[in-house]
Amino acid sequence: MPDTKKYRVPTKGRVKLADYDPAATPFAHDSIKAQEKDLKALNQQLARLARPLQAEGKRSILLVLQGMDASGKDGTVRGVFKYTSPLGVRLVTFKAPSKEELAHDYLWRCHAMVPAKGEIGVWNRSHYEDVLVPVVNQWIGRDTTRQRYAQINDFERLLTENGTTVLKCMLHISKDEQRKRLQERIDTPEKRWKFSLGDLDVRKQWDDYQQAYEDLLEATSTAHAPWYIIPADDKLHRNLMVSTLLNHTLLDMQPTYPVDYPELAGLQVV
Amino acid sequence: MPDTKKYRVPTKGRVKLADYDPAATPFAHDSIKAQEKDLKALNQQLARLARPLQAEGKRSILLVLQGMDASGKDGTVRGVFKYTSPLGVRLVTFKAPSKEELAHDYLWRCHAMVPAKGEIGVWNRSHYEDVLVPVVNQWIGRDTTRQRYAQINDFERLLTENGTTVLKCMLHISKDEQRKRLQERIDTPEKRWKFSLGDLDVRKQWDDYQQAYEDLLEATSTAHAPWYIIPADDKLHRNLMVSTLLNHTLLDMQPTYPVDYPELAGLQVV
Repeated sequence: MPDTKKYRVPTKGRVKLADYDPAATPFAHDSIKAQEKDLKALNQQLARLARPLQAEGKRSILLVLQGMDASGKDGTVRGVFKYTSPLGVRLVTFKAPSKEELAHDYLWRCHAMVPAKGEIGVWNRSHYEDVLVPVVNQWIGRDTTRQRYAQINDFERLLTENGTTVLKCMLHISKDEQRKRLQERIDTPEKRWKFSLGDLDVRKQWDDYQQAYEDLLEATSTAHAPWYIIPADDKLHRNLMVSTLLNHTLLDMQPTYPVDYPELAGLQVV
Repeated sequence: MPDTKKYRVPTKGRVKLADYDPAATPFAHDSIKAQEKDLKALNQQLARLARPLQAEGKRSILLVLQGMDASGKDGTVRGVFKYTSPLGVRLVTFKAPSKEELAHDYLWRCHAMVPAKGEIGVWNRSHYEDVLVPVVNQWIGRDTTRQRYAQINDFERLLTENGTTVLKCMLHISKDEQRKRLQERIDTPEKRWKFSLGDLDVRKQWDDYQQAYEDLLEATSTAHAPWYIIPADDKLHRNLMVSTLLNHTLLDMQPTYPVDYPELAGLQVV
């Protein structure tokens, strides 16, 4: 499998999104067909590896998907977990917080939804929205933001120290690609439900969001919970990269079926 | 698609599980290959229909899977939702209740997990465990059991009146098929984790459980939330039947993408 390290955000030093081409396709083959074949093989391996992870019931994976509107978070879930049964994967989609959620600290609703042992948890948006929306809209200041980065790092360390591998992907699209995709949502009847007029207001804050992303990537890409920047203008290639990362993660974990049950030796069911 | 009505438990009259052959394969074709092809087509249609259901965001489906140990509840989830992305399906596996759950009425934990609008919720075990385990073990008497049937019917009516289609499948296996499958779990290293010594104690209560199933099927197969008895000795055929039922349900609901957004007419993203 190709090398993903280049897209891992370093734990030190400034992050410039401009250094990452959203249209890059570093894992690409000559043909679309070959890429599709690769993706299928990766997704099927993922489904295979999810089963001993569940059987073990000791460790879990948390895949965080973040990105601007129309960056392909839903599409990634659909494209990567095509062969994984609902038995091993649990998707959580975080929306704007409810009144009850706002009445608690911002990590409260997230902590409640972390994957159980044996599960692959996938978060479509996450606690990172709380260092994006309030930052861009200046509801919180620099000090609070820095405090949140530290709280997030602590939270993710807690998870990793208790058996959860945390993998974070920022789906990186260009401003023009977003324009095309939003326009497509407006123009295609079956996609209209995914569009909201508010998306255009957020699009006007594009530069501020990119800045907020750079800041959070820099502050929260840790050795225990690294960020990956996924070039996401090409949907097939985006799926290929995320699936590769997940496969790497699972292969590293080497989940194995627990087979040592001495009490079952020679047991006959009558 | 074949007729499923024969397997729908009537809302009146006595139910005898002996009248339903667990090894029956009424939807079967000449060849395994043809059945596999059918199942694939059904599962893909299911995945297609789940998307407008989600887009609509107004209605939901609750599929309840019940059955003896090794009757194939997990296998059905794996076999039927092979092409459905985690975006549209939410699986809940109910285990023995925790102390906190026992400190509430038995429907409390179930109500908390009902599918949201747009979702297909799948329950691996359910509130029906609470008219099985305590009945067989005589922790509750006849009056309480009857009260629970009525409470369950009320609960399910609440759900259906608020947009949830409730579909309940009892995976019906023979005692000998269970013996084979439990033995297989013991003998196959990769399946051992699914076996628990307690399964043998429950197996000793086979007849009592069959009786409790007959009683609950009779009391809770309602016009608003019918039970289906799924012959489940043949795994492929079981999946074919459950997928057929789900497809019927979705085709009846006719989910359609909402396309009428006058505010988007002629809108250009800049």
